[in-house]
Amino acid sequence: MATHTSRRPAGRRAAARRSPGRPAGARAARKRIWLFDEGNATMRDLLGGKGAGLAEMSRVGLPVPPGFTITTAVCNEYNARGRTFPPGLMDEVRRALAAVERKMRKRFGDPKNPLLVSVRSGAKFSMPGMMDTVLNLGLNEETLRGLAGLTGDERFAQDAYRRFIQMFGKIVLDVEGGKFEQIIEARKRRAGATVDTDLTARDLVEIAREFKALIKREKAVDFPTDPWVQLEMAIRAVFDSWMGQRAVDYRNYNKIPHDLGTAVNVQAMVFGNMGGESATGVAFTRNPATGERRLYGEYLPNAQGEDVVAGIRTPHPIAQMERELPGVYRQFQDVATMLERHYRDMQDLEFTVERGKLWMLQTRAGKRTAQAAVKAAVDMVAEKLITKDEALLRVEPEQIYQLLLPRFDPDDKAAAEREGKLLTRGLNASPGAATGAAVFDPDTAVEIGGNGKPVILVRPETNPDDVHGMLVARGILTARGGATSHAAVVARGLGKPCVAGAEAIRVDPQAKQFSVDGRVVHQGEFISIDGTTGEVFGRAIRTLDPDLSKERDLQTLLGWADRARRLGVWANADYPRDAARAREFGAEGVGLCRTEHMFFEEDRLPIVRRMILAESDVERQRALDQLLPIQRGDFTGILREMAGATVVIRLIDPPLHEFLPRYDELLVEVTELRVRGDDPRALAEKERLLRAVAGMREQNPMLGLRGIRLGILFPGIIDMQVRAILEAACTLARQGIKSHPEIMIPLVGHPNELRVVEERLRPLAERVMAEQGVRVGYKFGTMIEVPRACVVADEIAGRAEFFSFGSNDLTQLIYGFSRDDAEGKFLLRYVNEKILPENPFQVLDARGVGALMEMAVRLGRKTRPDIELGICGEHGGDPASIEFCHKIGLTYVSCSPYRVPTARLAAAQAALKEKQARAERDR
Amino acid sequence: MATHTSRRPAGRRAAARRSPGRPAGARAARKRIWLFDEGNATMRDLLGGKGAGLAEMSRVGLPVPPGFTITTAVCNEYNARGRTFPPGLMDEVRRALAAVERKMRKRFGDPKNPLLVSVRSGAKFSMPGMMDTVLNLGLNEETLRGLAGLTGDERFAQDAYRRFIQMFGKIVLDVEGGKFEQIIEARKRRAGATVDTDLTARDLVEIAREFKALIKREKAVDFPTDPWVQLEMAIRAVFDSWMGQRAVDYRNYNKIPHDLGTAVNVQAMVFGNMGGESATGVAFTRNPATGERRLYGEYLPNAQGEDVVAGIRTPHPIAQMERELPGVYRQFQDVATMLERHYRDMQDLEFTVERGKLWMLQTRAGKRTAQAAVKAAVDMVAEKLITKDEALLRVEPEQIYQLLLPRFDPDDKAAAEREGKLLTRGLNASPGAATGAAVFDPDTAVEIGGNGKPVILVRPETNPDDVHGMLVARGILTARGGATSHAAVVARGLGKPCVAGAEAIRVDPQAKQFSVDGRVVHQGEFISIDGTTGEVFGRAIRTLDPDLSKERDLQTLLGWADRARRLGVWANADYPRDAARAREFGAEGVGLCRTEHMFFEEDRLPIVRRMILAESDVERQRALDQLLPIQRGDFTGILREMAGATVVIRLIDPPLHEFLPRYDELLVEVTELRVRGDDPRALAEKERLLRAVAGMREQNPMLGLRGIRLGILFPGIIDMQVRAILEAACTLARQGIKSHPEIMIPLVGHPNELRVVEERLRPLAERVMAEQGVRVGYKFGTMIEVPRACVVADEIAGRAEFFSFGSNDLTQLIYGFSRDDAEGKFLLRYVNEKILPENPFQVLDARGVGALMEMAVRLGRKTRPDIELGICGEHGGDPASIEFCHKIGLTYVSCSPYRVPTARLAAAQAALKEKQARAERDR
Repeated sequence: MATHTSRRPAGRRAAARRSPGRPAGARAARKRIWLFDEGNATMRDLLGGKGAGLAEMSRVGLPVPPGFTITTAVCNEYNARGRTFPPGLMDEVRRALAAVERKMRKRFGDPKNPLLVSVRSGAKFSMPGMMDTVLNLGLNEETLRGLAGLTGDERFAQDAYRRFIQMFGKIVLDVEGGKFEQIIEARKRRAGATVDTDLTARDLVEIAREFKALIKREKAVDFPTDPWVQLEMAIRAVFDSWMGQRAVDYRNYNKIPHDLGTAVNVQAMVFGNMGGESATGVAFTRNPATGERRLYGEYLPNAQGEDVVAGIRTPHPIAQMERELPGVYRQFQDVATMLERHYRDMQDLEFTVERGKLWMLQTRAGKRTAQAAVKAAVDMVAEKLITKDEALLRVEPEQIYQLLLPRFDPDDKAAAEREGKLLTRGLNASPGAATGAAVFDPDTAVEIGGNGKPVILVRPETNPDDVHGMLVARGILTARGGATSHAAVVARGLGKPCVAGAEAIRVDPQAKQFSVDGRVVHQGEFISIDGTTGEVFGRAIRTLDPDLSKERDLQTLLGWADRARRLGVWANADYPRDAARAREFGAEGVGLCRTEHMFFEEDRLPIVRRMILAESDVERQRALDQLLPIQRGDFTGILREMAGATVVIRLIDPPLHEFLPRYDELLVEVTELRVRGDDPRALAEKERLLRAVAGMREQNPMLGLRGIRLGILFPGIIDMQVRAILEAACTLARQGIKSHPEIMIPLVGHPNELRVVEERLRPLAERVMAEQGVRVGYKFGTMIEVPRACVVADEIAGRAEFFSFGSNDLTQLIYGFSRDDAEGKFLLRYVNEKILPENPFQVLDARGVGALMEMAVRLGRKTRPDIELGICGEHGGDPASIEFCHKIGLTYVSCSPYRVPTARLAAAQAALKEKQARAERDR
Repeated sequence: MATHTSRRPAGRRAAARRSPGRPAGARAARKRIWLFDEGNATMRDLLGGKGAGLAEMSRVGLPVPPGFTITTAVCNEYNARGRTFPPGLMDEVRRALAAVERKMRKRFGDPKNPLLVSVRSGAKFSMPGMMDTVLNLGLNEETLRGLAGLTGDERFAQDAYRRFIQMFGKIVLDVEGGKFEQIIEARKRRAGATVDTDLTARDLVEIAREFKALIKREKAVDFPTDPWVQLEMAIRAVFDSWMGQRAVDYRNYNKIPHDLGTAVNVQAMVFGNMGGESATGVAFTRNPATGERRLYGEYLPNAQGEDVVAGIRTPHPIAQMERELPGVYRQFQDVATMLERHYRDMQDLEFTVERGKLWMLQTRAGKRTAQAAVKAAVDMVAEKLITKDEALLRVEPEQIYQLLLPRFDPDDKAAAEREGKLLTRGLNASPGAATGAAVFDPDTAVEIGGNGKPVILVRPETNPDDVHGMLVARGILTARGGATSHAAVVARGLGKPCVAGAEAIRVDPQAKQFSVDGRVVHQGEFISIDGTTGEVFGRAIRTLDPDLSKERDLQTLLGWADRARRLGVWANADYPRDAARAREFGAEGVGLCRTEHMFFEEDRLPIVRRMILAESDVERQRALDQLLPIQRGDFTGILREMAGATVVIRLIDPPLHEFLPRYDELLVEVTELRVRGDDPRALAEKERLLRAVAGMREQNPMLGLRGIRLGILFPGIIDMQVRAILEAACTLARQGIKSHPEIMIPLVGHPNELRVVEERLRPLAERVMAEQGVRVGYKFGTMIEVPRACVVADEIAGRAEFFSFGSNDLTQLIYGFSRDDAEGKFLLRYVNEKILPENPFQVLDARGVGALMEMAVRLGRKTRPDIELGICGEHGGDPASIEFCHKIGLTYVSCSPYRVPTARLAAAQAALKEKQARAERDR
């Protein structure tokens, strides 16, 4: 609606501009109809995609049935006039059709030698909801006779007529399609026919009669017999379909302007169902699944296009045509090669062979899988068809991500479906496929999964207490929660498949089972989840694991991307194994190492809790002393793994109560003990814990005691962490391993916060290096995730040597959205109703959040021109957001290891688009 | 520290600039010492406050003991040289002292006719932690004899010597003061003396000897006998005290630059203890408590200044001097009048009478109560002493607020204290005094307080469920929570006294009592709380209720303020009675009428809950239909009360779960029922409710489903509210009463949110007016409280006819602070440790929050130049924040009714300061 509204005044202004100046004649002179051989490929705006393709093929001399295109401008004029044709339009149509008649040596409506045409819509973008094709237009009782005479095939002619009435009735006259089918079925029953082709010419005559009666009954109109009336009605129907509800909704949803309009293509019919030398088919110039350079497609001998689609007869692979129609096949091969060279891209072709003559009906860029996109792009560079820059722009970064995920073996998955093992579908929260034994709590996950046995963690929903289980699980399945629920976010971060919000399943962790539609899955039984589709299966399915090192083409493409991009690509990694994966995928550094995930691990959580609940400084320090060697080990591992590269380590961020037992659960336990009254000691113990947890509860933990606020109130924790980081770096330095730790302080909103902490941590770092007898380079910086930090970034840059945008929290605060709450409660609805163009947690909100990021970049650079600027929120792996980060001049983006290749390509595309824009400006 | 650090480089730069260019002679030529009759009142920077006052009095010919001031620049030089005197300083001191000697016809150190001096510090601002006065400097065994001879009073001379050694020992030599007192006490015991004056000259000789022995023992130095050495040491001590820890801390806390330095005042001694014609005293030119124009103060005959302070003898009222020393009194009256006229402000004076001669020792602006400030300012305009503008700038806006609060009768309060009824002190969360019966839950508060009986609601802490009780209570007392806890915020909004976080009390709502230090207060017992001081008393105390209409002077002053200010002053009012109070206090409109407070009222809450928990649309609509007439009544009441003025009505804002029973309590109830197992029906019922409440729970309700998000998801509620508003306005219009409702949509972050709602509500408003057959003017606007709204204010202003800054939420989101959590957990510590200069919920954070507000104002005006701009957060009543709002050009501020007079004055001061600044620029 926004687009529509904003367009209206512009339209009015344009009309105002137009009317007074230009003479009426000039307006009339605008060419409304283009013969195919008058247009070309660049005219998509005016002729639509299909029309421009037909024109281009005609222009370069390919065999295209002659025809013409009524422009999109006419559609707009039609609508502007309240659904009335511009005066004289039909006269122009007659003139254009006359040209077609001359080329075909047939005449429209001629009882002896009739020209039949197809009428098709064709907007700039292919668009569901637009009018379907009407074939065989021009037929009536008289021209039918001519067609029978010309072809010598009575049944063919009757069948063509039947098809025409059916299509016209359904598409132009809006009679429900099922009713035509019912008539055919009834006739087949009466005639004892099993398939359509069993019907005789006589049967078809009867069917046509019944079709017309149906139309008369339903719409109170006689079926038009005048071909010119048929044509005019069909053109009008195409225009009307542009403003049909489905098309309007689709455009609203996809933000396609409503004033593009659709073109109408009127084209001479050719018939693939005129006997043995006839055929119809579709083909890709390369294999759209693999990218292999070889014609790929299928065809049906003696059939019309719709038969291929209808799936009644099984089409033959295109290669078979080489044997059956060798001459035509060779010709088609040449055309395909020529069109690919011409368009410099893989083409998706439609053709018809009429009595041994090849006719091309459509060419367009072919949709392809990720694998095919990569292979085709790289191959085409080798073939010198396109440049490396073009190759980089040909592949969707998102496709790369899909390439790197484990997938189900398609055969085994299909088998499972056939066996009825598809249990349900949930939200596709984190892509990839996984198989494992169902487990229902994180401890069991560790117990079973820790030994290498694959497990899938199934929970009603997850929370930080479950993370140690999620770490060992192959995948996560939850009954509740949206695409940004805890399960989804953590799973995406870990690169693990996750199906969330599978509402049909009932999870009972006590009973260690879940049920769905009466079927029960117990602990230990194997299930499989597909996080790309949201499917949940009730048995193991074989998975195929990709290996980047074996993906030669992808490696080649990413190599080009690395040379093209300006933006660094780093990864978020909390563990050495993540860091290793990130490096393998091409990460140049670690932009976010979250130290608290380490705290959640099973062997550490008890110590962390002792530290938090300590009643004296001595007790707290004792716990911290226990944590120090553990954290040092963590940091040594990750710094070693990233030797020579930077690792940004964020000091503790979450509120401490996240590490404690949950308040609700404790409250229930205490109440139970109290009512039972049989264990006063346990009650007292639990009550003490409940009080401690209650004291730390917060109304809005997002906005509470966390981040640097913790560092100021409980300095012991971050002192321990900084000591661990420096000790780790010094240890490695003595082993000759170079590390570049950067200490990141989260949640800073005021420069004084940073000052207080820095004034303690810098001397501490110096002290550690003195103790260790070795110096290491380190930086001290901050996360920019509080809106105020953007506004005072100049002051903050006085202390911080680097900024890393925590775009998740920044988005939460700038919108006032809590992800946990917003997603489930209203955000999806906001996106569906287009109140928000996108989920701002997936695609960076450039207008709002981005504006403050830009401010921070500008102010930060003012104080410290060489400041290192990164982003470590989830947006760091999203292509559109990466383009924005490139534009505002960040140093790097940091994303989950699995998204690193995607980010490398997206960063390259951002640089290339900038280059293109500059070149255009300079032109 | 920030100031210190940032100053250092500036200092270095300044030094660099200075050294190469100017000749050494020029530097030496800078005047280091100013005789009192050389300086004047404008030289506070160089001479300090005290020095400038003494100079000014000398300059205009008043009797000031001669003396001189060593400048603050010397102090800085002393520190810059590593605590060394600038070369030649003591020579200059000698020359200056020679001038004093000439005037006094005495000589410093002369055994016969000795000049004694006092040495005092004197910075630009009066500052605790700086050096105290040293009197009688210049005495030693020899000059002592001269003094005895000159005065003919051996005991006087010995006493003067004793005092000098004591002061010098304590202040300059840093010997603990208590040790001197011990010597005196011991001597008194031995001499059988009860008071100091019982001691004989001989006793005093002994004491002086013991003092010297003490100093030798403690500091291993002989007491200096050379008057020049004494003087040099005293000057050095003053300079050193500038960098003493206490002074540095004080300056850091009060953001006073460290490079101001202190001056040193050396002045000839005069003695008020030289017999019957001698006296010493302090006086104000007007009564500092009431503002009455009459000398107010006290004096002591035959005493030195320190005796007045020490409180050993009871001083006489100053008026008594008229009888006892009539000539001196008349002279002093003339001097006082003259100084007041001269300084054009009420003065605080110190004087000494030596043998019938009046000497002035100090003059400075007098501190005064709110009442005195107002009366003096208004009187002085009548006396043509000052202009109205000056009068407006003389009164602190905050003082006005205190003037309008109920206060305890001071006599009764003092009596209560004497009786030991002061139970404890908590946080002074909302000022004013209240007395009532203690009640421990909101329902009882309504039950007892509803009948007009005064009650004080005592709770561990409050939440929205308690509001109906808070509404009827006279005051609120809580054991937990800070200055921005729920209790504090609501109480301030209601203008009710509140003492929060009184941690010493233990509240037991079940037992209906609280205890403090073993004393138990039961329900129904009377207590009194003073929200201005935080005191809690265990009995009723009489209160005095102010009445603005009787405060003639205040009315006059506020009338001037209204003419001086540009900013409108509106009030936040949810009920007609609040609106009436607001109008009485001068509010020009209602800037925030919160509709949800009405929902919390006891008779409505059940309907609201039915509406929320409705399981069908029909059920929900039925509840809404019941609410409609109630809300219409609410709006009719407030619109009628504000007839002719604007009322901004905010549609529902809080998350719906705030209206439901609390999850924790339900969880406990369900668990109890489950464990007991004796009432399955009640269990099922409660479980159903628990599930419903659980479904609405949020992790961070601040950032969840509230504000416009509710309006989009549950349009029925705001439809009902808008209908109620328009119906109310139409009803009034038909009665000939003009109303100007403005419909305010909360929590907008994206213009599309506003569009969706406006597209529904505008036609609804039109429909209501058509039904009612009358048209009323209304506006449609939004609260700016989400940071994103500031960034896209230009887009939002396309829909919104007004903005009202919700600065509370805006601050929460820009800082990422939840008030509920931050205040209790870390914000107070941040403020105490000066990490934040102020609590940003009390004083608007101009640098951060303010910058985004300015952006919103600029962008909003770009789209809609006449947009109405207000602020309705608590900052709307804070003077510093009001000044900021004036600067950025808001239309109005809206605050709680009780703060309206404060805001009127603050707005006037903001306008006057701007006028002054402009005048200075133009000069």
